[in-house]
Amino acid sequence: MKLIEAETPRLLLDPQRLQRNIDMMAARAKDLGVTLRPHLKTPKSLKVAQCAVPDKSAPITVSTLREADYFAQGGYSDILCAAATTPNKISHANKIQRETCSRILLVTDSAEMVRAANARADELKASFEFLIEVDCGEHRSGVLPASDDLLGVADALKDASNLQLAGVMTHAGHSYTTNVRAEQGAIAETERAAVADSAASLRNAGHDCAIVSAGSSPTIMNAAHLDGVTEARAGVYLFWDLAQFSLNCCALDDIAVSVLASVIGHNRAGKSIVLDAGALAMSKDIGANNFLPDVKYGYVCDVESGAPYAGLSVHTVYQEHGIVPVPDESWFDRLPVGSQVRVLPNHSCMTCAAYDAYDVVRDGEIVEQWPRVNGW
Amino acid sequence: MKLIEAETPRLLLDPQRLQRNIDMMAARAKDLGVTLRPHLKTPKSLKVAQCAVPDKSAPITVSTLREADYFAQGGYSDILCAAATTPNKISHANKIQRETCSRILLVTDSAEMVRAANARADELKASFEFLIEVDCGEHRSGVLPASDDLLGVADALKDASNLQLAGVMTHAGHSYTTNVRAEQGAIAETERAAVADSAASLRNAGHDCAIVSAGSSPTIMNAAHLDGVTEARAGVYLFWDLAQFSLNCCALDDIAVSVLASVIGHNRAGKSIVLDAGALAMSKDIGANNFLPDVKYGYVCDVESGAPYAGLSVHTVYQEHGIVPVPDESWFDRLPVGSQVRVLPNHSCMTCAAYDAYDVVRDGEIVEQWPRVNGW
Repeated sequence: MKLIEAETPRLLLDPQRLQRNIDMMAARAKDLGVTLRPHLKTPKSLKVAQCAVPDKSAPITVSTLREADYFAQGGYSDILCAAATTPNKISHANKIQRETCSRILLVTDSAEMVRAANARADELKASFEFLIEVDCGEHRSGVLPASDDLLGVADALKDASNLQLAGVMTHAGHSYTTNVRAEQGAIAETERAAVADSAASLRNAGHDCAIVSAGSSPTIMNAAHLDGVTEARAGVYLFWDLAQFSLNCCALDDIAVSVLASVIGHNRAGKSIVLDAGALAMSKDIGANNFLPDVKYGYVCDVESGAPYAGLSVHTVYQEHGIVPVPDESWFDRLPVGSQVRVLPNHSCMTCAAYDAYDVVRDGEIVEQWPRVNGW
Repeated sequence: MKLIEAETPRLLLDPQRLQRNIDMMAARAKDLGVTLRPHLKTPKSLKVAQCAVPDKSAPITVSTLREADYFAQGGYSDILCAAATTPNKISHANKIQRETCSRILLVTDSAEMVRAANARADELKASFEFLIEVDCGEHRSGVLPASDDLLGVADALKDASNLQLAGVMTHAGHSYTTNVRAEQGAIAETERAAVADSAASLRNAGHDCAIVSAGSSPTIMNAAHLDGVTEARAGVYLFWDLAQFSLNCCALDDIAVSVLASVIGHNRAGKSIVLDAGALAMSKDIGANNFLPDVKYGYVCDVESGAPYAGLSVHTVYQEHGIVPVPDESWFDRLPVGSQVRVLPNHSCMTCAAYDAYDVVRDGEIVEQWPRVNGW
């Protein structure tokens, strides 16, 4: 299908950029001497997973049990659910394990949760492997590295007859707070040390700690080394986005997803163009604006080349309307009512979540639809 | 199913509050002497539609053709698509009309679009009815009231052999910029006058103008009268939300939807509780904070009563994590890891869009699931 015939808004995926990003990060993990466990919370798509992780026995990361279920049913068998679990999720995790024989790695930072999960596992006659979440400086969640709390959770796991300690994990989300690559590198070192030290502390106390897992796209891009880490997690690198561009983690033309939108009106008095891509189509994430305040809700790009129009971005969004101020009247001729543009997203994880599928574009035509899973 | 057994996050709907809101707005429309054309872009659910509009031949409003398709397939036959259309949507609109015999009212503010839509209709041997969008002061889109532009679009419709002028419509989105009800009332009067004057101007020029459509929840709540208006559109009143509460349009206990979330961790050092309701589960809309800066991403409420815990809101969101600072340590006992809360949304249209379905709660149990449609 030609783009101009396609109903809008819709989510476009450039498979060549995707593949380039995949190859780049695979090489990066190889250089760092770690296994890559791609975080598929960004694409939530089996077709994208097949590009990023062709070997279905290789490790992947997800953020929800719905994703775990979807990828396990799709043949993936080593799945880390990276957000801490709760007792009301244990039954679903068990169902996935039983139906698919996949290994589901759960996460917690709480001895209290370990005991509750164990009781639930007991009722279900199920067993689970856990990673302990370590706080490497973001202060969102996790026990402090090599702390008594860490050992407390590990002891609780040892006491839990249905649960097993599989290792430790951390995520340096605070790497998003700087656009200086050297500072991202320093945060990467804190992230590495947090799990490496925690693993050493667990082993010293007599615990096994096979998996030592760390990562965020900015830290993996900038780590000097990952000694003591067994696996790196990163997700947004698959598509990149304007937030990552604002952090100097990617180039604009690495961004593999965009929203195809139509011009639905000209507001000549207000000197703006109205698009059918609004708050739902773009999301209300404006994370890129911390470092690039001209991004607003996204850079507006030429529909064919995908190149940004200098100075054009979506300034205001309503549920189904996006407003693009234009510097002069000539834009009303350049972008007539009914014409199309692409808009680059602030945060691809958020923007993609509004869509059922990716429209894969080659040579200016939609050649395939790749479904994705959303919700919980 | 008991709430505590339910996997989280999920979207809860209180059907009694929904019905109360429906009855209130029906009475309001009756008082104002107008037909209510509920905007179903908020619920996007046939089950909710059946409560709000039991007579399927009665008028409804939608924001996307996917919604139009869904409601038409569900039996609704008078559907206004309230966002301006584009040529690439004409074929879908035609398919809906042919398959369901529904009346699909399209919207535009552009003579250029009228000509392009007519050419497309010609190819499809289809015909369409249009409303002309009028700008009543929001300056988002629409022609100025009773302007030459208005008459220009009407003339273009007269010249378009496959298209018919059905009337005019406007939306006073700028009613969201004040929380003073008298000011919302003044904006309601501007909204009313904009379409009433436009209808008069069209009729003077020899055009038919059967439908004179206006509305937003705040203006319909505060209009003194709607003389010259035939129908009122409003949507968010079905569920209300914290943004509308911040505008003094509803009470907290009118809000009919909330997100059920679990406590997944305690950050004792950071004095916060971690929920599994983050940016995807709540959306990143923070519209209520203009007037109520303590809302952040949503008020945290008792899971049973639904009453807000004074001082507790979701301050920070990550994709699947929500952080709730707590004033003192006692909250770690009140809300242990694994316990549940409800979170009220800033903007129900945005929050609900992340979910496939509503979990209908009666007497503390989920008694039914009502599916909804998302995307485009």
